[in-house]
Amino acid sequence: MRAVVIKDKELYVEERPDPVPGDTELLVAVRAAGLNGADMIQRLGFYPAPPGVPADIPGMELAGEVVGIGSQVTRFAVGDRVMGVVGGGAQATLAVIDESHALPVPSTLSWPEAGGFPEVFETAHDALFSQGELTMGDRVLVTGAAGGVGTAGVQLAAAAGAVVVATVRDPARHAEVAALGAATVIDPSEVAEHGPYDVVLELVGAASLPDVLPHLATGARVVVIGVGSGSTVSVNLLTLMGARARIGGSTLRARNRREKGNVAAAVEAHVLPLLASGRITVPVCHTFALDQVEAAYAQFGAGSKLGKIVLVA
Amino acid sequence: MRAVVIKDKELYVEERPDPVPGDTELLVAVRAAGLNGADMIQRLGFYPAPPGVPADIPGMELAGEVVGIGSQVTRFAVGDRVMGVVGGGAQATLAVIDESHALPVPSTLSWPEAGGFPEVFETAHDALFSQGELTMGDRVLVTGAAGGVGTAGVQLAAAAGAVVVATVRDPARHAEVAALGAATVIDPSEVAEHGPYDVVLELVGAASLPDVLPHLATGARVVVIGVGSGSTVSVNLLTLMGARARIGGSTLRARNRREKGNVAAAVEAHVLPLLASGRITVPVCHTFALDQVEAAYAQFGAGSKLGKIVLVA
Repeated sequence: MRAVVIKDKELYVEERPDPVPGDTELLVAVRAAGLNGADMIQRLGFYPAPPGVPADIPGMELAGEVVGIGSQVTRFAVGDRVMGVVGGGAQATLAVIDESHALPVPSTLSWPEAGGFPEVFETAHDALFSQGELTMGDRVLVTGAAGGVGTAGVQLAAAAGAVVVATVRDPARHAEVAALGAATVIDPSEVAEHGPYDVVLELVGAASLPDVLPHLATGARVVVIGVGSGSTVSVNLLTLMGARARIGGSTLRARNRREKGNVAAAVEAHVLPLLASGRITVPVCHTFALDQVEAAYAQFGAGSKLGKIVLVA
Repeated sequence: MRAVVIKDKELYVEERPDPVPGDTELLVAVRAAGLNGADMIQRLGFYPAPPGVPADIPGMELAGEVVGIGSQVTRFAVGDRVMGVVGGGAQATLAVIDESHALPVPSTLSWPEAGGFPEVFETAHDALFSQGELTMGDRVLVTGAAGGVGTAGVQLAAAAGAVVVATVRDPARHAEVAALGAATVIDPSEVAEHGPYDVVLELVGAASLPDVLPHLATGARVVVIGVGSGSTVSVNLLTLMGARARIGGSTLRARNRREKGNVAAAVEAHVLPLLASGRITVPVCHTFALDQVEAAYAQFGAGSKLGKIVLVA
């Protein structure tokens, strides 16, 4: 197979031995693999691959056709269209994925859309619903809403009947985020004026959270997923006590195989129907061939447009 | 009636007009009224009474006989033994309590035990179970466990099948806290050695919490109830994200009538059977007559013994 390989912080495309699926794994001919922030961090050497995953081939999500299956696979067969989150190795022409982490691709979805769906939608769904216990009518704040997890979170929260307030620093992107379902799109400096918030999807970190905490509704749930602006914050416990509120954090990558399967199953049950019907969409702003991986990563770093950047076969 | 009255931070016992029960309230001849930290703070002028509660008569909990009922009362009748949490006014010979906040007193309980039960057990039960989602087998840390809420929390957690680790600063009181059901009683400096913790009942605040946060189990729930040592802490969000943990806070006094009724109902359903059977006990270390209120508050401030201090009629 051909694969993106990281060596000394540089990206190459090289020939590598084909992976062999384990008992419960699918071998997938990758048709599309979305880029994520984790890839950028892995390139810099700060995101070690978990055990059993190729350490030098990046890629946290994929979509493609099943071309081989392990001896205990029951959910999928050769020829099926699948997509899912993996611990690494997705940016290649072949990859393996545990069948409990794979989702069927709705027929309405293009390959780039499918390849850009799993990581951000699983992250946002788990944060909003499993961690944040979002319910209909909640007032939800999504900070840094123009990013991948943010655009997924805005759509999911709005689809579930929440009222979404989204912070977006670049005014040029406010209209696009509103079109995804946010009731109100604001500059981060305006957070105080649009609360109180029942659920907060915190995607920015230390530069955002202190401004949010004084504006929590009674019983509020704050879920921290992104800390790009810093990870240490000063918290006034009396604020939490008065609002009976809580602050939690979460990552998908630290979870074990079973727990990742639970996240995938929740998205299959609750998000796939909306994706199939078009109620939820996967914005894709650029696609690149595998050989153009350096340009793809550069585009991701530039980050000027809303939507996923996806490598395609 | 006779009542404890706060004037310029001093305590007096004075004659006052009898309270009149509202439509859903009970008039109670108070037989016992426990002292709480909130009384000490109210005496200093920092704990304003909520609307509808006498501003200058302290007392957050009571036990006594029903001597009158409002027109819409259905749960209790004149002559019943009741106990419960009130917004103030319990340290008097007569007081009113909403019937939804009153619990029947098990026949096995003495008046001082009944008068010292509601506040700390409702606080600890709500924190551990409603906020902290404590379940059988959880490893629970109770910090400052020798206090009123702490001794209630240790007993409740142990009774529910949790493994309780308790921090107690005074070595002389370790054996007493162990006798309440703590599997391990430690000095606060030893928190790191006995984790990771699934649930933390934080009763100390800023002097304790930073030492606890690095030792949370996956999915841990920290509930902050006491901040006597300070309320501002620095939190590393990556620690929360890695453990998929959350920090929440809570107070009972800020809740509305309906919400306080929910807390009382939960304690009635889940704790009263254990109190009636003797599985849960109310340690009472001193009782004082109403006229000795100054000595009672002085004893509370000295805080050298484990158990409640209760004013009795």
